Amino acid sequence: MTQTNRQILLVSRPEGAASVDNFRLVKVPLAPLEEGEVRVRNHFLSLDPYMRGRMSDSKSYAAPQPLDAVMIGGTAGEVVESRNPKFKAGDKVVGMFGWQEYGTSNGSDLHVVDTTHVPLSAYLGPVGMPGVTAWYGLNRIIAPKAGQTVVVSAASGAVGSVVGQLAKRAGCRAVGIAGGADKCRYVTETLGFDACVDYKAGNLYQDLKAATPDGVDGYFENVGGEVLDATLARMNAFGRIALCGMIAGYDGAPMPLKYPQLLLTQRLLVQGFIVSEHMDVWPQALAELGALVAKQQLVYRESVAEGLENAPTAFLGMLKGQNFGKQLVKLI
Amino acid sequence: MTQTNRQILLVSRPEGAASVDNFRLVKVPLAPLEEGEVRVRNHFLSLDPYMRGRMSDSKSYAAPQPLDAVMIGGTAGEVVESRNPKFKAGDKVVGMFGWQEYGTSNGSDLHVVDTTHVPLSAYLGPVGMPGVTAWYGLNRIIAPKAGQTVVVSAASGAVGSVVGQLAKRAGCRAVGIAGGADKCRYVTETLGFDACVDYKAGNLYQDLKAATPDGVDGYFENVGGEVLDATLARMNAFGRIALCGMIAGYDGAPMPLKYPQLLLTQRLLVQGFIVSEHMDVWPQALAELGALVAKQQLVYRESVAEGLENAPTAFLGMLKGQNFGKQLVKLI
Repeated sequence: MTQTNRQILLVSRPEGAASVDNFRLVKVPLAPLEEGEVRVRNHFLSLDPYMRGRMSDSKSYAAPQPLDAVMIGGTAGEVVESRNPKFKAGDKVVGMFGWQEYGTSNGSDLHVVDTTHVPLSAYLGPVGMPGVTAWYGLNRIIAPKAGQTVVVSAASGAVGSVVGQLAKRAGCRAVGIAGGADKCRYVTETLGFDACVDYKAGNLYQDLKAATPDGVDGYFENVGGEVLDATLARMNAFGRIALCGMIAGYDGAPMPLKYPQLLLTQRLLVQGFIVSEHMDVWPQALAELGALVAKQQLVYRESVAEGLENAPTAFLGMLKGQNFGKQLVKLI
Repeated sequence: MTQTNRQILLVSRPEGAASVDNFRLVKVPLAPLEEGEVRVRNHFLSLDPYMRGRMSDSKSYAAPQPLDAVMIGGTAGEVVESRNPKFKAGDKVVGMFGWQEYGTSNGSDLHVVDTTHVPLSAYLGPVGMPGVTAWYGLNRIIAPKAGQTVVVSAASGAVGSVVGQLAKRAGCRAVGIAGGADKCRYVTETLGFDACVDYKAGNLYQDLKAATPDGVDGYFENVGGEVLDATLARMNAFGRIALCGMIAGYDGAPMPLKYPQLLLTQRLLVQGFIVSEHMDVWPQALAELGALVAKQQLVYRESVAEGLENAPTAFLGMLKGQNFGKQLVKLI
């Protein structure tokens, strides 16, 4: 019995904004497993802002996604067939199979996860790359002291939601920036941030000023653009900025920083980072994050699109902030 | 005998560019010393870019210079009278007496210096605040490895000249950015940098690219503006930027950073700093710098204006890059 695999390929690079035309859905037969290989049925695809960078071939931290290849991305699923002694059918695994229903590999890039107390999809969110990203930026770059103020943009998202909750646990004032009243209400009422600023309300700087009466000591940046300008103007001396995402600039529009001199006058630290270059912290971070999720002390929310064919639309929507929480595609 | 002291006061704040009208020369009598006090005849005034920031009352790292008070600044001179057992007439001292001929203090802010092998004026330059600034930014922020490329702007100046020479001693490729062919020639031929880019030649980015074939690992920023934009575009992954001065923005003109997303894509570190907040490194830095100057292994150059009355003009000229090396005012 030859099984069919459905995949989504990147077939062209965006000129300006990314669009569904950059992708194509294809069906391919699944070859029989070779010795040492393992086959995974993906249950969830992770959609993340960094993927937009991979679509372009401009200078970035990673090689561009090749054209006419399966779109890159993290996945969580179940082993359905194994010719590798380290895996057996039924194992739940996370990997990087990208936008396709089945993944086949030699297992070196797969991690078996325990779904007894932590749902499978959480390994793509708070107990996965987004969670570790939050953990690293907060603990290793911002390193806040109790009583300090930490601001995070895209606060209702997969990374931002964890940043603020960890900051609260560290005794900080946590202030989110998010788009829309619904997201802001979620950030304060459900996630427990002290305040949230709706950047769409048209009064960003003044609202942020009101929410940060003692200034800002740590800023976790997921967005860039005017949100970065506004927060920079609220930074206290010796503040730290963990630069994790600049989604506002992904489509190539100019995104100048208006007042870079504040970096000097306030003696700020800015550190750009990508979490995959700091694998040494993953075990500690995942252990802490997994324990918090298992004990339901870390709240998270998912935006779930159904079906592989809807991945491009869900991805493009996420880039525009239409998701609410971690954006996933559920395949099964 | 009542002696007269001449002083230059800041009498107004600049609106736009600073001008000589912001200053006024006054003559005041010198009061007799009280018990515990020491009087210093200043020989040299140090003129430094940071003073421009103090003239304004906008948010900065230091309280603004008060109006109708002696203009702030470092000084080097000789004790002429002492009622303090720690000092005796003839001692050479550095202090912060500002723009005046005589300074009087209780001695707590004075440091006796040894001029046997190091000229007095050098304690305002390579063996003083500018030298330690260079040392701190290079060693504690950029922390270059042998073989890496270090770029410094205002390369012929008091700070930049030390940065490049220390980088060369650390086994790095040292590349300067300076204004004009004369300064660039000095930077390479006299200071021994590997290359120097003349930002006034109209081809900044291309010239910098040619001078940094392996990209830039460390950047010591004294200038800001288009020089920062150009260098940012040459930074290698994991590069470090020591942000020491942004003289281009001191007069209030907008100075946006064009491509802040490079901070993320190249995972750069930016750290703004002022050296007076890192007093712990001064003894080590001054010992190293003093030894190098005494052995004539650290070259420096001074631009000397004569007479207190010429301090404002010399200062404004320095802000426009008209100085060539450390700007001093010689009083005696």
